[in-house]
Amino acid sequence: MNSLIAVATVKEEVKMKGSDIQAKQKKYSLQSWSAQKNTAPIPVEKAEGMYFWDFEGNRYSDMSSQLVNLNIGFGNKAVNQAIKDQVDQYCFLSPAYAAESRANLAEKVISVMPDNISKVFFTNGGSDANENAVKIARMFSGKFKVFSRYRSYHGSSFGAGNLTGEPRRYALEPGAPGFIKFFDPYIYREAIEFTSEADATAYYLTKLKEQIIYEGANNVAAIVLETITGSNGVIIPPAGYLPGVRAICDEFGILMICDEVMTGWGRTGKIFGFENFDVKPDIITFAKGVTCGYVPIGGVAVSKEIADYFDDNYLSCGLTYSGHPLACAAGLATINFYQEAKILDNVNAVGKVLAETLEKLKEKHACVGDVRYIGLFSAIELVKSKESKEALVPYGKDPEGVMPKILGMLKAKKFMTYFHENMLIVAPPLIITAAQLTEEMEKMDEVLTQVDQTFL
Amino acid sequence: MNSLIAVATVKEEVKMKGSDIQAKQKKYSLQSWSAQKNTAPIPVEKAEGMYFWDFEGNRYSDMSSQLVNLNIGFGNKAVNQAIKDQVDQYCFLSPAYAAESRANLAEKVISVMPDNISKVFFTNGGSDANENAVKIARMFSGKFKVFSRYRSYHGSSFGAGNLTGEPRRYALEPGAPGFIKFFDPYIYREAIEFTSEADATAYYLTKLKEQIIYEGANNVAAIVLETITGSNGVIIPPAGYLPGVRAICDEFGILMICDEVMTGWGRTGKIFGFENFDVKPDIITFAKGVTCGYVPIGGVAVSKEIADYFDDNYLSCGLTYSGHPLACAAGLATINFYQEAKILDNVNAVGKVLAETLEKLKEKHACVGDVRYIGLFSAIELVKSKESKEALVPYGKDPEGVMPKILGMLKAKKFMTYFHENMLIVAPPLIITAAQLTEEMEKMDEVLTQVDQTFL
Ligand SMILES: Cc1ncc(COP(=O)(O)O)c(C=O)c1O
Ligand SMILES: Cc1ncc(COP(=O)(O)O)c(C=O)c1O
Repeated sequence: MNSLIAVATVKEEVKMKGSDIQAKQKKYSLQSWSAQKNTAPIPVEKAEGMYFWDFEGNRYSDMSSQLVNLNIGFGNKAVNQAIKDQVDQYCFLSPAYAAESRANLAEKVISVMPDNISKVFFTNGGSDANENAVKIARMFSGKFKVFSRYRSYHGSSFGAGNLTGEPRRYALEPGAPGFIKFFDPYIYREAIEFTSEADATAYYLTKLKEQIIYEGANNVAAIVLETITGSNGVIIPPAGYLPGVRAICDEFGILMICDEVMTGWGRTGKIFGFENFDVKPDIITFAKGVTCGYVPIGGVAVSKEIADYFDDNYLSCGLTYSGHPLACAAGLATINFYQEAKILDNVNAVGKVLAETLEKLKEKHACVGDVRYIGLFSAIELVKSKESKEALVPYGKDPEGVMPKILGMLKAKKFMTYFHENMLIVAPPLIITAAQLTEEMEKMDEVLTQVDQTFL
Repeated sequence: MNSLIAVATVKEEVKMKGSDIQAKQKKYSLQSWSAQKNTAPIPVEKAEGMYFWDFEGNRYSDMSSQLVNLNIGFGNKAVNQAIKDQVDQYCFLSPAYAAESRANLAEKVISVMPDNISKVFFTNGGSDANENAVKIARMFSGKFKVFSRYRSYHGSSFGAGNLTGEPRRYALEPGAPGFIKFFDPYIYREAIEFTSEADATAYYLTKLKEQIIYEGANNVAAIVLETITGSNGVIIPPAGYLPGVRAICDEFGILMICDEVMTGWGRTGKIFGFENFDVKPDIITFAKGVTCGYVPIGGVAVSKEIADYFDDNYLSCGLTYSGHPLACAAGLATINFYQEAKILDNVNAVGKVLAETLEKLKEKHACVGDVRYIGLFSAIELVKSKESKEALVPYGKDPEGVMPKILGMLKAKKFMTYFHENMLIVAPPLIITAAQLTEEMEKMDEVLTQVDQTFL
């Protein structure tokens, strides 16, 4: 391998720079969520808006906003400038001191939150936002059990991983006590058929309430939900579901924690996902879109009641980089950009085009069992048969690598995204135009035709 | 409060800007490790080297390198420039792609590690470095239990918090199963008196081995240690202790994980703390000094054997910001700076002055029970009496706020650091000169005189 690279270097310098980088990264670092021999990370030379380029000049379209975080795309000038300006003041300051960018981002975050929310605790990312949300809920409530759902991803550290319901939590098992799982409203594949959405809602809420009672309602500190399940396939709750969860929380004095790490910051056409359902959580966790990953940060926003509790009670939370000045400067510029660019208007306008396109794809292609979408957040669920709903690959298994092959077909057209089980995620940057979206979705259309022909 | 601020603003604009920032930060954000009403975060306007200034123009000396992370001080030009240059390429790139700064930092980190270490997995900070170290150790070994020590701080998230032995772990309790605690070699306050250092080492190793056997040696995946206990008072292991732990690990097939989050990157006069003791860990976690916090990052470096295991086996680790391009660029520039500035030479030279000064302070002041130091990492342990060794404040209690009062005396002289229990931490930036150190330690001398007079 090494000698091959050396030879190629002589021949074609620009090309080799990219493969050198890939080889070096593979040699010295561990790649996430993989057996290492299976990875071939594309080296990226430059990036702009929703596109990025490898070292051979190939242009790729970022149809998943990287990890559903790069809402503003690459190279946003205002955010770049804000970072550079902050570098000139200072990059780091201990959380024990006050920094202008830190104070300003805190104020800004609270200004876009529901009126019951009064303070934020800053973390490094989404996982530790959820870690701290659970800690805060337990400290405040004096209760211990925390409910979360099976089809969910809340992060990979021990606390967030214990909240997570999908297989990525297995690496944390046997888990910490007190983390209880319930099922999510995944109507498309529910074991029973519902006569109406209201029926479904009633069913899920009844089961949840039953489980809370059986766990001992007085022991439950919080219910943690991705407002809309993200990584596990953009599962949108039926009408009445989230207000119903809110009502159950109120009935039993349980805190409602919405994980807005993926759904926050405009993704769904509202600033936060829960705004689509007219509920106010007690605690909101966020990350990703707040800076779009330009500088790492996450946070936990809490209700006034919770914030006030910690006036006199010790907050046992802290981390070295909490409220990082550079990240806060980036966050402030990002939120300002969302507002000045009227990003929600774009999400809603282009989201309508996405919705129509997805419905057409579902009608046209035998392999499309279900499409789910809200704003610029969507999933295409692939099946062997629309009637039986048999998934294109069985749950947790894909021995022939069908889904990677489909990703490969998309990649051949420079349409970059990822999959989960039998689902393709489509979640482009929120700055995408209708024309750009249409261009990309034509590639998806072509690939789905190939899927119809190859895998059914 | 608000109206007071408004009035003051009219009177004195610059002054008010600072207090506005403080008020805003307090109003909208939760401060770490505190009851909120007790916090008064000093607003920092500018910073340079080992100094920072509030909005009234007061200059403070950073004698703890913020949170023992700002080794290169504020405003390092090379690191600032590297960040700005990376902003111009791109700020964020998914961990699934290859980035030049990511590949280069991975290579650089491995180049300064012992020769048994071959790959790094990047995280956001120190806590999640330890989280992932435990996950990796369990995946690799197929074993479950993890040993760590009582006097230790490994982070505040669930996994790192379960490793942590000191009271900050209580917020995570009842904890996850499989986290076992043992006692550290805190000779100064051991229940028995040793006749020699070798005696002490033999005692601690015998007890550790006994405990491992009683926990079932075959069930133990890893022993996690701060190479030198940091936050809990710079507890330096006696000669032979770490090689002894290494031998126990080898005997039972247990992985040795050194947490170098605080001791790494030059702090102790070597690049990593364990180099002082001639041992090679299997896994090394780091954060803080790798970028000095200029951009948040952490990492887990693993042995070749472990890295190879994940060629074919799935690595169930991942986080959105893993291998952040901006952080990697900052890290690369930071390590280059350490090397070009020959930072270790400075640490060892000024460290000698620190050592001599601390010994003199111990001789001179009745309140100084013990001083512990290595490189530019030190603690002063305050007592009511040298003979009885009675701590100046009892463990876990300080009802009269004696230690905060002592910090206040230092702060009055603009000597900024923090304390833990009855110990003052002195760990200035590694760029400090001997003259600067001497100037600051004179302030410490004066304050210790006050302590002798006031609290004994
Ligand atoms: C809903 C949700 N919560 C939490 C996380 C974890 O965030 P991070 O990767 O920043 O730790 C993710 C990441 O994808 C997520 O989608
Ligand atoms: C030895 C050690 N490990 C881990 C951590 C946690 O690091 P972070 O605050 O970046 O999560 C710290 C922080 O002080 C530490 O000193």
